[in-house]
Amino acid sequence: MIFEESVALVKKELEAVEVALQENFMSDVVMIPQISKHLSEGGGKRIRPLLLLTSSKLCGYNNGNRHINVCCVVEFIHSATLLHDDVLDDAAIRRGKAAANVKWGNEASVLVGDYLFSKSFQLVAKDNDFKILDSVSEASRRLIEGEVLQLTQRKSIITTEEEYFDMVKRKTAALMASSCQAGAILGKAPEKVEQALFMYGEKIGIAFQLIDDLLDYISDDEKLGKPARNDLKEGHVTLPLIRAYECSDAGEKEFIDQLLGAEELAREDTTRILDLMEKYDVISYAMGKAREYVQQGKKEIAELPPSVYLDSLNAIADYIVENRVELCLKNPTY
Amino acid sequence: MIFEESVALVKKELEAVEVALQENFMSDVVMIPQISKHLSEGGGKRIRPLLLLTSSKLCGYNNGNRHINVCCVVEFIHSATLLHDDVLDDAAIRRGKAAANVKWGNEASVLVGDYLFSKSFQLVAKDNDFKILDSVSEASRRLIEGEVLQLTQRKSIITTEEEYFDMVKRKTAALMASSCQAGAILGKAPEKVEQALFMYGEKIGIAFQLIDDLLDYISDDEKLGKPARNDLKEGHVTLPLIRAYECSDAGEKEFIDQLLGAEELAREDTTRILDLMEKYDVISYAMGKAREYVQQGKKEIAELPPSVYLDSLNAIADYIVENRVELCLKNPTY
Repeated sequence: MIFEESVALVKKELEAVEVALQENFMSDVVMIPQISKHLSEGGGKRIRPLLLLTSSKLCGYNNGNRHINVCCVVEFIHSATLLHDDVLDDAAIRRGKAAANVKWGNEASVLVGDYLFSKSFQLVAKDNDFKILDSVSEASRRLIEGEVLQLTQRKSIITTEEEYFDMVKRKTAALMASSCQAGAILGKAPEKVEQALFMYGEKIGIAFQLIDDLLDYISDDEKLGKPARNDLKEGHVTLPLIRAYECSDAGEKEFIDQLLGAEELAREDTTRILDLMEKYDVISYAMGKAREYVQQGKKEIAELPPSVYLDSLNAIADYIVENRVELCLKNPTY
Repeated sequence: MIFEESVALVKKELEAVEVALQENFMSDVVMIPQISKHLSEGGGKRIRPLLLLTSSKLCGYNNGNRHINVCCVVEFIHSATLLHDDVLDDAAIRRGKAAANVKWGNEASVLVGDYLFSKSFQLVAKDNDFKILDSVSEASRRLIEGEVLQLTQRKSIITTEEEYFDMVKRKTAALMASSCQAGAILGKAPEKVEQALFMYGEKIGIAFQLIDDLLDYISDDEKLGKPARNDLKEGHVTLPLIRAYECSDAGEKEFIDQLLGAEELAREDTTRILDLMEKYDVISYAMGKAREYVQQGKKEIAELPPSVYLDSLNAIADYIVENRVELCLKNPTY
């Protein structure tokens, strides 16, 4: 199965999620639906709803609309953190559109992010299942811990791979793991299946962020829909840079140290970093790590009974590494 | 009964709340307990926990520690919005101490605020009662709507009293109402009592904010523990200014219009605004409104059976207007 078929398999449900997101954006405070509309027009792959819907179907959930409602919960948590990330990074572009903070100001982005957080928990309240509440509130807390860790590690090249993976596991993987787990809870799956889906989500979530961080270095603005090489500019120390530093000799290490301490980045600095990454084959290294996590993710669900939804989860796992890299590179040679 | 007795009545529980707040601040991400410690040392009256504890006792709750846990929920939601408010206002001082955003940067304040939101919902999950979750998540959503409204109304003198009260009801009163309601839910009070306590909390919550907004004009930095006349500087249009504008003649109105459009405030501008407020007796007007809401709040609970906790709620209501104004004025003549 390929990714497009995974999407097609739950197409009706994904459309219902879009409608529900719009409905839940409604408020008599006009600025809220305005910004929300801008956010949802920005699109995004709705990868978390896709994981949740597929997991719920895999576990036999097939009556009622709880899965649509819980998709809104995880997507709102995700959107809230995107809004706040934009403020933190002062990002001007997100998904090829002006970021909300530029259009409405940082204040509005902070507040509408808060609104989406509150709203997400109101939607969990509506769902009325404490297992779901436990799962998404734990994911939400871990996600924010990951963001705080990212802030703490900023401009710090002494960040180790271990610390980086710990941060990624919280920042990105926790909510994907919870999305899969929530699907299992909806389908009243046995504990073992619920745990397998959680672990699958966590592993592919790590791979997802790894590829994001890699694409930041190897893709371009147009294909990414946001400025490339932004992590370096913002001082986010991600795997490609950590690996390059590990391999570097003393002179190269000094260059990277200086770069992270500098106020501004010159074009030749970026070029030299990219040269170092090529010299030490950092891209292959990061791709290798991402593929490892995808394999681990697939292994977690390997013993579940065969079904079209299981095939779909495997296809999503492959998409997360292979297809995203393909789409974002003109000549993918990795 | 006086306010100090209200506090004494639940002293043991308030101390347990402090301990629980500290425990719940714990995280292996070191920045989180650091900022949280700074926040809690800042003190604050813990008025929401006080309302919740007193309401729960009034309704006969007397076994277990759920009330302590739910106090952490409402206090975390409140602290999260304080942190985000500081970012929005770029406030340098909060409760006489350097605001967290100055000490750690806006990024940390946004993220630790988000952390407290997430944590609060994890604590509700632990409490395992959907009535409580419904109440606090609704309050949280309305609180943020109030903040967005405040942002929308910024620098807009065409804000009416009605719009101002609507904003205040959401921004401040919703969480106080929910604190009282949560106490009633814990005590398994009948629907009618729960509703009465909710309405009491809403009314005194409005009075609370009214007095806050009034003190911003009539008190000084030292007594407030934060810069006075800050609302005017930030362009927050509150009741005293709305009232002064309503009473003003054409020339005075033009002056206020220009003031709100201006980039900076001169000392003589502030003086002229204060003169206008004196001329039109704005302080008495605002005090009158606050007292009205306190009376309405007391009326909501007037038919509950007499008890020391009922006396306490009445004392808290009085404190909110009379004592706070007394404490913040050298010569309270209003």
